[in-house]
This record gives sequence, structure tokens and C-alpha cells, in this order.
Amino acid sequence: MFVARVTGSVVATQKVDSMIGQKLLIVEPYRLDGTNREKLVTTGRTFVAVDALGAGVGDMVLISQGSSARFTPETNKLPIDTVVIGIVDSVSIERQSVYNRQQDNQPNS
Amino acid sequence: MFVARVTGSVVATQKVDSMIGQKLLIVEPYRLDGTNREKLVTTGRTFVAVDALGAGVGDMVLISQGSSARFTPETNKLPIDTVVIGIVDSVSIERQSVYNRQQDNQPNS
Amino acid sequence: MFVARVTGSVVATQKVDSMIGQKLLIVEPYRLDGTNREKLVTTGRTFVAVDALGAGVGDMVLISQGSSARFTPETNKLPIDTVVIGIVDSVSIERQSVYNRQQDNQPNS
Amino acid sequence: MFVARVTGSVVATQKVDSMIGQKLLIVEPYRLDGTNREKLVTTGRTFVAVDALGAGVGDMVLISQGSSARFTPETNKLPIDTVVIGIVDSVSIERQSVYNRQQDNQPNS
Amino acid sequence: MFVARVTGSVVATQKVDSMIGQKLLIVEPYRLDGTNREKLVTTGRTFVAVDALGAGVGDMVLISQGSSARFTPETNKLPIDTVVIGIVDSVSIERQSVYNRQQDNQPNS
Repeated sequence: MFVARVTGSVVATQKVDSMIGQKLLIVEPYRLDGTNREKLVTTGRTFVAVDALGAGVGDMVLISQGSSARFTPETNKLPIDTVVIGIVDSVSIERQSVYNRQQDNQPNS
Repeated sequence: MFVARVTGSVVATQKVDSMIGQKLLIVEPYRLDGTNREKLVTTGRTFVAVDALGAGVGDMVLISQGSSARFTPETNKLPIDTVVIGIVDSVSIERQSVYNRQQDNQPNS
Repeated sequence: MFVARVTGSVVATQKVDSMIGQKLLIVEPYRLDGTNREKLVTTGRTFVAVDALGAGVGDMVLISQGSSARFTPETNKLPIDTVVIGIVDSVSIERQSVYNRQQDNQPNS
Repeated sequence: MFVARVTGSVVATQKVDSMIGQKLLIVEPYRLDGTNREKLVTTGRTFVAVDALGAGVGDMVLISQGSSARFTPETNKLPIDTVVIGIVDSVSIERQSVYNRQQDNQPNS
Repeated sequence: MFVARVTGSVVATQKVDSMIGQKLLIVEPYRLDGTNREKLVTTGRTFVAVDALGAGVGDMVLISQGSSARFTPETNKLPIDTVVIGIVDSVSIERQSVYNRQQDNQPNS
């Protein structure tokens, strides 16, 4: 799994039938900043994830990929490879906080 | 999943029997432009996807990979790892549009 | 899936029993040339694929990876993650040919 | 699988029901130092893994990914793609030690 | 699959029960040298593989990844994603030898 920021959404009217009603989020994986290890920074990659937890733009989420993306009650049997399995409250590295949802002032969140 | 542009097609006469009749598209994954975050840009990668939705050259599509590519009625049991599961109408980032199908003037679409 | 050039082969006498008799090909993934988009170029990567279609050195083939590599009659239950599922006749990008098997003069094919 | 350093943890209160009670670790994959091949160095990547072995910050662990992450008694049926399957005591390369848990003085472990 | 050099081993005393007794090898994937295409060179990456064939340090092996790593009699049901499925005798590219086990003088093999 990896931590990612929800930054957007996708609309697709024509789709595989089983996907009707599924919310599609744009998520950007984050990694630890290599320089000072004090914060999380974007990897510059862009994925699309299905969300059944009600995550919104600005939220930091936990993403699972591959066949395991089908192992939630809402995504069972869907043709998807990326799913939100949690909304992240905090991340600590070497016992220092590098992300805290309450202190997260994303300009567009 | 990821968003990709359909840019071409592949013809393969000799193939595994179950693949006969399957439409093979060249798709190029897109990511958010890192500089201004106002549009989607190609990642420079090239995949081949099976399509059961009738996507054509120029369309932006939603791609799923891995075992989940077999979880559509049309691709069940096929030896494939990449499938088109939707045709993208729009993508928004931080509530601004970065892709809209109606304003998309790809030269070759 | 991706398009790859068959460039060699691997011999392994000691192997898992189920692999006895399987033909092992060296394949190099190709992508669209980013500069002029008029031809396919190597990505510089090297994979080993099982082949049940009789592909030979010089052929451009269609490769599938992951669990789906086991979804052909010949590879069912094999411990493999990469398989040739087609021999490519042609690839077109934006309706222009970027690969045609009949005009393909690979020096070693 | 790969060897990774446990460097932190993730808290997510809102999550898929089956994930309640699962410990989420930040792990950073390590590779052999390319220059002198005498030690392991970080790859700069960041993953989140489920742990059922009691690993702590500073530990070097063995990570398995994909569907196999569900093949432990504790993770069976969880929607996860990354799991700790061992705590590493030592790694040797060309019969020289490159990692030994007893001589490992990570500042934050 | 890919060709990799066995360069070391991993010891992990605390591990998932099913992993007890499994031999853990450090393997480094090799690719064709891009400059002259006359030999195989390391990719600089490091994986850990389970081995049931008795491969040793210095051996060039064939590696399979993902769910297929569980499709050997010895690894069935193990939580692993990387396995040795063959010991490589030779690799040829465009009908020239680029690796031959009998002429392989790895300093540490």
C-alpha cells in the first residue's frame, strides 16, 4: 500500500456496467522527502482509485493495488486495481510527525 | 487504474485462440503536468489494452491492469493484463478542469 | 500488455518440473519513439517470456504479464508471469503505420 | 520480496471494516549500494505494510507484495498488497556481511 | 520472468510460520548491455527470492514474480512473490552467446 493525496476526480459516462455508480478519484502517491525526512512530498505520479469511504479532495488516503483492490465489500468483483482502504489521520517517521490531518492546510482542500 | 489516451491499434493474426476477435488498442498513460497542474501530459509509456467499449483513436480512457482486467463480461478468462473500463468525459484537479472531452481537439481524433 | 521484440533465448536445464519443454524467449519491450512518433524503439528492458506460438528471433510480439500469463491452454498452472499471446503484424499510431512485419528488416531476424 | 527498513507508522481511523486493528508500518525498501557493495542503502521509496510479527521502527524486515500478501493467517481476505513476512537478522553478499541486526545502530531505532 | 544473478542470502529467524525452512536468496536482475549488446549487466536492483532448486551464490537464475511464485510444489500457499524457477545455462541474443555458465568466472561464485 502507499499514502496518496486525493487531488481530483474523473467522470466517465460510458463504462463497464459493474462500474456504474462507482466514485473515481485522482490520487497522487506521496513519499518521504529525501532531503530532510520531515514531510511527505508528491512522487509526481497520478492514479485513479475507487473510493467507498467518502474521501474528498485534499484528503490523504491509504491506497491498495492489484487483486486486493477487490477484497472490500463494495469492490468485490469489480474490474479495478486501485482502491482507497483508509483515510489517513497521521504519519510518523522515526517517531516525529510528518503528516497530521488536523494541521494539514492544503490550499485546495 | 490510470487515465490514458488511445493513440493507435495493433493487428496480430497469429495469436492465442481465446484472443480471436479482440480489439487491441495502443494506449499512452497520462499524468498531471507537474509544472502548472493545469493539464494532463503523456508519461511517454506505451501499453496495449483490450477494449470492449468501442473506444477510438483520440479518446481518453480509464485503464485497469492485472488480474482485474479479466473481471468484465467480455474479458473473463482471457490471458490479458490491461483493459479499457471507461471512456473519460472529464478530469478535474483541485476542482479545476484539466480535461474535458468536448473541448479536446486532438489532431488525429 | 505491451509490444516487444524477440531478440534471444534462454536455456535452463535445471528447473521446476512443470517448466520442462517450455520455450524461453528473451523479449525487449518497445515503446513509441517520443521524438517523432513515427517508429517503435526499445525501452532497454529485458524480460523472459514463455512462448506457445512459435515466435522466433526478430519477431515483434504481444506480451501479457502477471496471473493472466497462466490463462492460455499451454501455460495453465505454470509458475510463469510473462507469456507471448500474439505475433504482431502491424502497429499504427494516429492512423500512420509505425510497424509492419513485412517491411521489418531486423539485421538478425 | 525485498528487504526494507521500518521507519514509521500510519494511523487511519476511518477505514475498510476488515482493516480495523491492523498495524500499519511505513517501510523503505533497501538495495545493495552500487558503489562498493558493502552495505544496504535506501531506494528512497515509501510503502505502507501490514505487520503481524511485531516489527518496530528501526527493524529491517522482509516484505512480500501482491496477492501473496493475503497468504498469511492474519491477513487472509484483507484488501492489502504489502505485508511483513519476516524480521531480518542478517544479509550477506558474496559471503560478506552487509547487514547484521546486532551491529545495527540506527539513530532512531 | 527475468534473468538474475544470485549474489547473497538473507537470514530471518522471526517469520511467518509457513516460511520456516525456506531458503532466501538475494538476486540482482540483469539486462542486456545497451551499448554493445554483447553481455548481460546488472540493473542495480535487489530482490529476495525463495529457492527450491539449490541455486548458490554466483549462479544466474530465472525468476518469476507475483501470484505465479506460488505455482510450484514447494511454494504452494506461501506468502511469497518471487521464486527461482530455473538455473540458467546460457543466454543468446541475436544468435550470439551473451552468457554461458561454463565460461562464467564470477569472482565470488
